[in-house]
Amino acid sequence: MSDAVSPLASPFPALPAIAGVTPRVARAGYKDWGRCDLTYVELAAGTAVAGVFTRNVCCSSEVELGREQVKAGKARALVVNAGNSNAFTGYRGREAVEQIMAQVAGHLGCDPREVFVSSTGVIGVPLPRDKAREGVANALAAAPCGWEDAARTIGTTDTFPKGAMAQAVVDGRTVTLAAIIKGSGMIAPDMATMLGYVFTDCAIAPGYLQELLAAAADRTFNCITVDSDTSTSDTVLAFATGQAGNQRINCGGCPGADAFAAALEDVCRQLAHLVVRDGEGAQKFIAVTVSGAVSDASARKVGLAIANSPLVKTAIAGEDANWGRVVMAVGKAGEPADRDRLSIGFGGVWCAREGLPLADYDEAPVAAHLKGQDISIEVDLGLGDGRATVWTCDLTHGYISINADYRS
Amino acid sequence: MSDAVSPLASPFPALPAIAGVTPRVARAGYKDWGRCDLTYVELAAGTAVAGVFTRNVCCSSEVELGREQVKAGKARALVVNAGNSNAFTGYRGREAVEQIMAQVAGHLGCDPREVFVSSTGVIGVPLPRDKAREGVANALAAAPCGWEDAARTIGTTDTFPKGAMAQAVVDGRTVTLAAIIKGSGMIAPDMATMLGYVFTDCAIAPGYLQELLAAAADRTFNCITVDSDTSTSDTVLAFATGQAGNQRINCGGCPGADAFAAALEDVCRQLAHLVVRDGEGAQKFIAVTVSGAVSDASARKVGLAIANSPLVKTAIAGEDANWGRVVMAVGKAGEPADRDRLSIGFGGVWCAREGLPLADYDEAPVAAHLKGQDISIEVDLGLGDGRATVWTCDLTHGYISINADYRS
Repeated sequence: MSDAVSPLASPFPALPAIAGVTPRVARAGYKDWGRCDLTYVELAAGTAVAGVFTRNVCCSSEVELGREQVKAGKARALVVNAGNSNAFTGYRGREAVEQIMAQVAGHLGCDPREVFVSSTGVIGVPLPRDKAREGVANALAAAPCGWEDAARTIGTTDTFPKGAMAQAVVDGRTVTLAAIIKGSGMIAPDMATMLGYVFTDCAIAPGYLQELLAAAADRTFNCITVDSDTSTSDTVLAFATGQAGNQRINCGGCPGADAFAAALEDVCRQLAHLVVRDGEGAQKFIAVTVSGAVSDASARKVGLAIANSPLVKTAIAGEDANWGRVVMAVGKAGEPADRDRLSIGFGGVWCAREGLPLADYDEAPVAAHLKGQDISIEVDLGLGDGRATVWTCDLTHGYISINADYRS
Repeated sequence: MSDAVSPLASPFPALPAIAGVTPRVARAGYKDWGRCDLTYVELAAGTAVAGVFTRNVCCSSEVELGREQVKAGKARALVVNAGNSNAFTGYRGREAVEQIMAQVAGHLGCDPREVFVSSTGVIGVPLPRDKAREGVANALAAAPCGWEDAARTIGTTDTFPKGAMAQAVVDGRTVTLAAIIKGSGMIAPDMATMLGYVFTDCAIAPGYLQELLAAAADRTFNCITVDSDTSTSDTVLAFATGQAGNQRINCGGCPGADAFAAALEDVCRQLAHLVVRDGEGAQKFIAVTVSGAVSDASARKVGLAIANSPLVKTAIAGEDANWGRVVMAVGKAGEPADRDRLSIGFGGVWCAREGLPLADYDEAPVAAHLKGQDISIEVDLGLGDGRATVWTCDLTHGYISINADYRS
């Protein structure tokens, strides 16, 4: 965790324990720091798992293995290494992951493929196997910890620990979701985002959990961007222990399926927003809503072009209602748009409608809105019914300071 | 022109006069500044013209009109307004451009469609017609000026005037190309770059000039990026007065066609590099060379993904040989790549070969290279023969300072 906390930070919520889920943290010493950097979460037998992963083709061994592992749908443990991403480390990196899987599987008496491993940090340095072995041993011997400790331990350049919860009534039982996430840079859509973990006591078939997680990710994690960069490691996993006692949800028609899906999307959205709120150097949280596009997918692409534009992001940092830069970003998105139907606003006040600056445009309420921390940009393309909201943060001196002096 | 000159600035070269080309500058007062902001270049009767334009779909009226005008291939004058881009200003913006075209055509006794207009500056404010009328009148009455004055007058956030020249022997005659350009932000490929003008005395058919300019732009202007943002206005025009006395070049088989093409690409590359050297906040000039791609086009896309990555650009700003961020950028490009064949180097020294950090990697020469102003990044994908070089600059506090406080 960094010293200077993001001005957009949220306090860590009161997250309940989830039946069948036991987190622990320990020191592996992946970097020369005096903090816990290995998180171990034990999961009861019978836990279902689903996952979505980075699309970066230079992904880590953890991601390659994880993609295979979720196909079997079963999990008994999660290990998260912080400080070393183990990406671009070839066979040595893969051996380190397999060592961790084997060590935990030996302890639990399970199949190594039921042990999920994530790593985050610098790229290109193989995870040191001796430190990993000792760290895992320490974690297996440690007392259980709370969610906030786990959320802190998976963090790297994060400035505050991030968690979220939701509940749903499924088949007459209250099921609970508790979730943690890390990430503040190298954040861009297409599941190239962060390390996020959702734990629930709901009984749900892994195939259907996968379907719901992929859909939720598309509307949450894949709609945020900090810097358009796409990590080689990042991963969101959902674990369901099934201990809430509900009849297992197998498909969309099952009792409570919709309620669970809504709760899952809710925690995913909370987690995604928290990552943006900890965007490197972020001073403002920006929601970009695009309507009137030819499709929802097109609206999302236009929204991301705006949210990724350095000129838009610096304008917001400067509290400047520079809607001309929004016009530019719409135009470069490569999606259908018509300059003469385009409307642009900030904070619910239109600056330009149908291709022309408003004659009676009053900048005062817009200027007041831009002085706040939560900014909205509205774009109406005037072409169809497509709609999407994406979230980002502003681009500030803080981003440069953090990233021009990150390694070593 | 800004006060603080880019540390990467080049002195303005000695540019020769071009027969049939007469530049003048004047004050229109588009902004409240004490400088010339209207450039007028008169072209002899019989001048051929070609142009490449932004692909931003929210382009300005100047771009819309210019695209139509180049089809006829004839030009008699160029007017460039600085301080107001006249983009996203609807019919009022278009009327302002048509007024300028008519005013100049009336003076020259030519077709208004032979008068080319460009505008650069803030988006969304219609070009004031009274100021334009007076500015053009002032320019028509002004004494001819040198290229450096013209280059300064087309500039906005530029920190130094930019010019380039080349010569070629065509059909036994020496033909000369003199060129000026402006641009330092909102620079990204796909001809969404800047305002650039090439003037030559070569006799060449407009259709073939268009072909050569488009090809040269693809290897020069479309291979640079400052911030991935794509302007709504930007334009490169080439004017050929035909007064060098060579037999007109009509196609690739004509005498001197190859020599002229090489000279044209040479000035375009010089101009493109100058824009990067004035990239907003730039402290370092970065050449990214990608080899071993499945095609040249694929190599260029991978190169641009690296050159547009904020994390790569901030690493270079921090003089950090963080090749892991280059791996990340290769992986997010969406082009064929194989982590285990990938090699990455800086300044001609490999850091990683075929998917693994080099065991005997000596960071000292790389660190020394990164302390310089001219940085090279080499990437070998190990897949095929595709190759491309793209150019960018680093991302620094200067970019944030300039862009978080740009609009009045």
